[in-house]
Amino acid sequence: MNIITLTTDFGMQDGFVGTMKGVIWSILRDVQIADISHDITPQNILEGAYALWRAAPYFPAGTVHVAVIDPGVGTSRRPIAIKNGVQYLVGPDNGVFTPLLMEANSLGRGTEIVLLDQPQYWLPRVSHTFHGRDIFAPVAAYLAQGVPLRELGTLISDPFLLSLPQPEKTRDGWIAHVTIIDVFGNLTTDLPASEIGNHPIILHLHGRKIDQVVTSYGHRPAGELVALVDSEDYLEIAQVNGNAAKALGAKVGDIVEVVISKHEQ
Amino acid sequence: MNIITLTTDFGMQDGFVGTMKGVIWSILRDVQIADISHDITPQNILEGAYALWRAAPYFPAGTVHVAVIDPGVGTSRRPIAIKNGVQYLVGPDNGVFTPLLMEANSLGRGTEIVLLDQPQYWLPRVSHTFHGRDIFAPVAAYLAQGVPLRELGTLISDPFLLSLPQPEKTRDGWIAHVTIIDVFGNLTTDLPASEIGNHPIILHLHGRKIDQVVTSYGHRPAGELVALVDSEDYLEIAQVNGNAAKALGAKVGDIVEVVISKHEQ
Amino acid sequence: MNIITLTTDFGMQDGFVGTMKGVIWSILRDVQIADISHDITPQNILEGAYALWRAAPYFPAGTVHVAVIDPGVGTSRRPIAIKNGVQYLVGPDNGVFTPLLMEANSLGRGTEIVLLDQPQYWLPRVSHTFHGRDIFAPVAAYLAQGVPLRELGTLISDPFLLSLPQPEKTRDGWIAHVTIIDVFGNLTTDLPASEIGNHPIILHLHGRKIDQVVTSYGHRPAGELVALVDSEDYLEIAQVNGNAAKALGAKVGDIVEVVISKHEQ
Repeated sequence: MNIITLTTDFGMQDGFVGTMKGVIWSILRDVQIADISHDITPQNILEGAYALWRAAPYFPAGTVHVAVIDPGVGTSRRPIAIKNGVQYLVGPDNGVFTPLLMEANSLGRGTEIVLLDQPQYWLPRVSHTFHGRDIFAPVAAYLAQGVPLRELGTLISDPFLLSLPQPEKTRDGWIAHVTIIDVFGNLTTDLPASEIGNHPIILHLHGRKIDQVVTSYGHRPAGELVALVDSEDYLEIAQVNGNAAKALGAKVGDIVEVVISKHEQ
Repeated sequence: MNIITLTTDFGMQDGFVGTMKGVIWSILRDVQIADISHDITPQNILEGAYALWRAAPYFPAGTVHVAVIDPGVGTSRRPIAIKNGVQYLVGPDNGVFTPLLMEANSLGRGTEIVLLDQPQYWLPRVSHTFHGRDIFAPVAAYLAQGVPLRELGTLISDPFLLSLPQPEKTRDGWIAHVTIIDVFGNLTTDLPASEIGNHPIILHLHGRKIDQVVTSYGHRPAGELVALVDSEDYLEIAQVNGNAAKALGAKVGDIVEVVISKHEQ
Repeated sequence: MNIITLTTDFGMQDGFVGTMKGVIWSILRDVQIADISHDITPQNILEGAYALWRAAPYFPAGTVHVAVIDPGVGTSRRPIAIKNGVQYLVGPDNGVFTPLLMEANSLGRGTEIVLLDQPQYWLPRVSHTFHGRDIFAPVAAYLAQGVPLRELGTLISDPFLLSLPQPEKTRDGWIAHVTIIDVFGNLTTDLPASEIGNHPIILHLHGRKIDQVVTSYGHRPAGELVALVDSEDYLEIAQVNGNAAKALGAKVGDIVEVVISKHEQ
């Protein structure tokens, strides 16, 4: 059985997600559907982009990932589908696939992108405000069913990409940025642990110093701010059994100064 | 594989929804279960009714929709199951299926309703407070398995129906009502777009005038109030990249005055 | 098709739950995955323990329940798997399975517990902070696939158990404790209805008296505080169409004094 995943800012209150599942199962009954997230902040494309980027690699070959954070629905923004290695991506061309496409690029992994322009693979009637139901869900079902990507649209090579912050090497360390704040209030940054290597480091964020570098949360007392390597191998700031985002008043995009400690051991 | 959907006010915190899935899969293993909504405001039958009404038509023939917004559980309110065209409905007889039944009626589509009175299709022990688990989940599983509706209960013809507001034609337009407020704060009304036709219109709600009629959100600058046709072909009020319900202090049931503009173009 | 359930404090915002589903389906495609709860209060092991305890018995034989409320992830706390009668449990050894193990013990039902120490059944690379993805999800998939429990680890007999409050018999009734507050604000206690039998009772909580004992919510007017037997046969306090927890300012662990009424009828 193939798998389709859904990432949206629809919440679970209104039945929009259930509607998309109904459309998918009406076309292809034997497919598993996994919710990646429906609690993306409304219209926050970047937040949805990171959630999908973290989850997608853990799904098997053939999985079709649908992302619908789509403030431009019904305007000239393009509907697209992408073959990304052995998986597929379906959604609006508004940057929601940027981290996955940049990763594919940096790994030299091939991608194929089509502009969805074949209405025979959509619902018969397409609304102006719910392409998740009318275009993206049916296209995902047909991809999961085995319809080739190129039958669904016309090849394009200029997807819209978000401009993501990048970490910067400084004289005595790095300037990093908060990229994700998770449900626990942990702050993921864009600085890969591999960059830091074995250097002892001290972090500065909003005038606060964080000098406890640990391997996991439970190694320090509750309430303490710590730095660690997150499950994706990026530098993370956490508060043990607490919420670092609240404790620090931090938000996505904030600058984290990472200083290599003078007292190397 | 057949499909059962669930619409409840249980939230996802307490495990009630998971419990219902366990009951269903204990009776019938090969069935897909879709969550339509579990974030219905507690005891808000109308909100659940509209969520199910919008999602149900997109599911395939044979789907069994279970709705458990059930403040009267354990009292004399009746448990019912309904054959609605090629789909089934299961839940309390408290009006939660009103929009679906009214639509069936207006389309001349036949419905059959049974009072669930055959305990051999329920869990062996029925609590006073969780019929979602003890009656509705097992009945849904047996329907999905192919047990005929009439084996599950006794035909009735007097389902309880909510009194839904209806739009009213006035001398220079319509009086409409807010029926649904979605996660984005968009306000759906009960006025079908087909009623309005090509008339240019101006809307009034809470003393605010809305005169931008657009086809989708992204056609106007962020923050602006706009009117458009929603994905179900009803008149909707939205705030571009914002929350119209908050901006207008609107709630379900509020009156929207729709005036045909004097300056027809 | 086998079933795996997930109970976590991950929320649905960040994609962690979706990631675990991807891992499971990458190992075993034909398995249903049910969300029991992902809205457990962060790090609240007891809350997760009760949610799983209430839902688990309703799942069929062979079901694998994964619980990841895991503030000690990456420390010396042990990863475990348990054969609990005809079902399996997988998660951290931090007490999250306490109510299920105590119930098994009181029913004389056998349990087998293994310390997970066979990395060939984990993801190739194990992070310090996300064992739900790297250890528990793959172990659950292999159990659902039929790998025997004892191949996954080494038998242990000293699981960590939480110290749960127990109801206490007094001269004129019982001292009970609030164990669960659900989405409706209903307060479940640890006093089984079977203890009370047919005695008329009056409850005291935070200086408020509750003397309306009913069979279900709808038997009293909206707003009234009532006592009833919950769907698991424990004494519960509710406010009709309201939120008893808010009305009473109650929280988990609060003492409920249950007094046998002098005026037996």
